[in-house]
Amino acid sequence: MASDTRDRLIRTTSRLLRTQGYGATGLNQVMAEADAPKGSMYFHFPGGKEELAAAAIDRFAARMSRGIAEGLATYDTVADAVTSFFDQEIARIERTAFTEGCAVATVALDAAASHDLLAATTGDAFRGWTAQLADALEAEGRSADDARRAAILFLATFEGALLMAKAQRSIEPMVAVRDVVHDLLTLR
Amino acid sequence: MASDTRDRLIRTTSRLLRTQGYGATGLNQVMAEADAPKGSMYFHFPGGKEELAAAAIDRFAARMSRGIAEGLATYDTVADAVTSFFDQEIARIERTAFTEGCAVATVALDAAASHDLLAATTGDAFRGWTAQLADALEAEGRSADDARRAAILFLATFEGALLMAKAQRSIEPMVAVRDVVHDLLTLR
Repeated sequence: MASDTRDRLIRTTSRLLRTQGYGATGLNQVMAEADAPKGSMYFHFPGGKEELAAAAIDRFAARMSRGIAEGLATYDTVADAVTSFFDQEIARIERTAFTEGCAVATVALDAAASHDLLAATTGDAFRGWTAQLADALEAEGRSADDARRAAILFLATFEGALLMAKAQRSIEPMVAVRDVVHDLLTLR
Repeated sequence: MASDTRDRLIRTTSRLLRTQGYGATGLNQVMAEADAPKGSMYFHFPGGKEELAAAAIDRFAARMSRGIAEGLATYDTVADAVTSFFDQEIARIERTAFTEGCAVATVALDAAASHDLLAATTGDAFRGWTAQLADALEAEGRSADDARRAAILFLATFEGALLMAKAQRSIEPMVAVRDVVHDLLTLR
């Protein structure tokens, strides 16, 4: 089924981007790991690898965004939602033996400089997450500016701690920043 | 001169790792951009690309570490030194049109999962920077645990804001977190 193949191509690419970035991810590897029929790649993604990667990043960003929305709906405060998000990602990075980072961060570092479509896609992902979190923080009574700064602070700290966890193959950086971020998002 | 060639290979690799990561950096590109004679690569780096990348990351980490030491010697507080570090990197990322990120962060995301030597090298870089900053924070009167957490918080926030700047081709994330980090490192 054509749409199943498209879906498998995107999911496989997303996983590979998280693990090894854009540069190391070849179309042959994607086709093999997605068990995709010959010719299906350019049927679904005539723009080739960059178009496929952009679709994978868009989907990854949308999935994270749904996770953030669920957390915000489940917990009473943004701070508690964010702590739960840290806990989930700490469990995931351990479960994947420190292999799966953030697809957006990885491509931002290894391909956004040289690929305009990927810069637009990774930029949109961060702009979207920032706006989503800033809206929730503003609803708690912060000014628009303060809410935006706090949202950026959380995202930056989260992404940085996740990459340090990958580098050191240790959850220590994520655990170390989790509670500080909770306090920062609680303070008025 | 053999040692000049070695030096050019390392410098060129460091710049390419910052811009495009490990996966996209091929030895032919390094040789061409470093203007290195044929055969010099395996003469200086018998372990090939991974050994060369590890040497480039080690040198990048040592250079950053000297920059941190200079900042700590120049300013009265760790908080002020860190603010100056942010300002320098904000100027640099703008000057390079959002192309040059952190070599350690980029390789941590795109290659540490699959290359044990590079995981060891990126891990050592973060462990070294963390210890250096934690020592300075402890000298200001923090407990060892608190100093270590604050050091990790700064590094995570800095790396995350830098990758968001690359993703969005905007210095906003770095400016947004700079003053919050200053306050955090000032609080006792």
